[in-house]
Amino acid sequence: MTAGTRPRRGAPPKGEVSARERILATASELFYREGIRAIGVDTVVERSGVSKTSLYRLFESKDALIAAFAAEQDRLFWARWDRIEEQHADDPRALLEALLSGIAERIGLPAFRGCPFLNLATEFPDDNHPGRVVARGNKEELRARLATIVARLGASDPDRTAFQITLLINGAYVSGLMAEPADLRGDLVDAAMKLLD
Amino acid sequence: MTAGTRPRRGAPPKGEVSARERILATASELFYREGIRAIGVDTVVERSGVSKTSLYRLFESKDALIAAFAAEQDRLFWARWDRIEEQHADDPRALLEALLSGIAERIGLPAFRGCPFLNLATEFPDDNHPGRVVARGNKEELRARLATIVARLGASDPDRTAFQITLLINGAYVSGLMAEPADLRGDLVDAAMKLLD
Repeated sequence: MTAGTRPRRGAPPKGEVSARERILATASELFYREGIRAIGVDTVVERSGVSKTSLYRLFESKDALIAAFAAEQDRLFWARWDRIEEQHADDPRALLEALLSGIAERIGLPAFRGCPFLNLATEFPDDNHPGRVVARGNKEELRARLATIVARLGASDPDRTAFQITLLINGAYVSGLMAEPADLRGDLVDAAMKLLD
Repeated sequence: MTAGTRPRRGAPPKGEVSARERILATASELFYREGIRAIGVDTVVERSGVSKTSLYRLFESKDALIAAFAAEQDRLFWARWDRIEEQHADDPRALLEALLSGIAERIGLPAFRGCPFLNLATEFPDDNHPGRVVARGNKEELRARLATIVARLGASDPDRTAFQITLLINGAYVSGLMAEPADLRGDLVDAAMKLLD
């Protein structure tokens, strides 16, 4: 999943790594905040202070830049997830609660602008778009990891329950785009526990 | 909610009504299929066979066209809902099942490209965008109507249960963008019933 952030041809000179990082950081912030289609490559060039030639040498196309953005978001998502898993390794119920609480918390942040993977799927209808492939992979892994957790909690049909919880999570991400619910954390945890029983 | 589809200055000449309808039908199909930002006004002009001058006389701006598109989607959404409500006026459980089944069925259609209101909220981060206002209104009404139904089913906290079911529905819309689940209808109905108990 981190392939997109790995330099492609051996170790590049130091200046080149930082140009790549600068472009990706600038693009990530703008893509997430304004929408991917709303941001042209020229804007990324201008804001990152890197030349257009360098951008296209490092990313080939806007689609390649979008895929790298998605891969980086995916890496960050699972890094957060793994940290929570480590804290609740022995208690799957506390783990599920903590994961849902973390999601509700991010949705409540002022800078929240939706789930980057769902946004990508909305903005790019083509199933084969390289960014969409990363987005789909993220959601498939989400379901698989939830299935493992609810199986430990004794769910009779872990795949179904895990899928139902992904509906709640994805629903929370998109609902959170429009209005901030009064008690999203409580509503999510309560719903997940009802689905488990 | 249908204000956007009402001619603004008295009854316009017949030719003008049909130009308006032609523009709106063309824009609606393209906006939904390709994404709103992906479609410029020039494309709508070209495909509808109506002049750019006429388009801007009838809609003032692309944002006004987007708002009219959203209002028309909203009208269609509640027309479908009302038809189902009429069929199950005396049985709230059968009504809820039929509403969820209808939603799952539309998600399964080959032309499904997400919920137009959620897509709009994703594409236009600005809370005051006129299309987004319609989208938010649709989701608020969804929650209110579900609260009435689950109250009839004896839910102890109808607002919370209704909100949890909107999470499932919105989650189904966005999850359905990426992969078609094996039994979405069954998963949705099963989850909603568990939330009710």
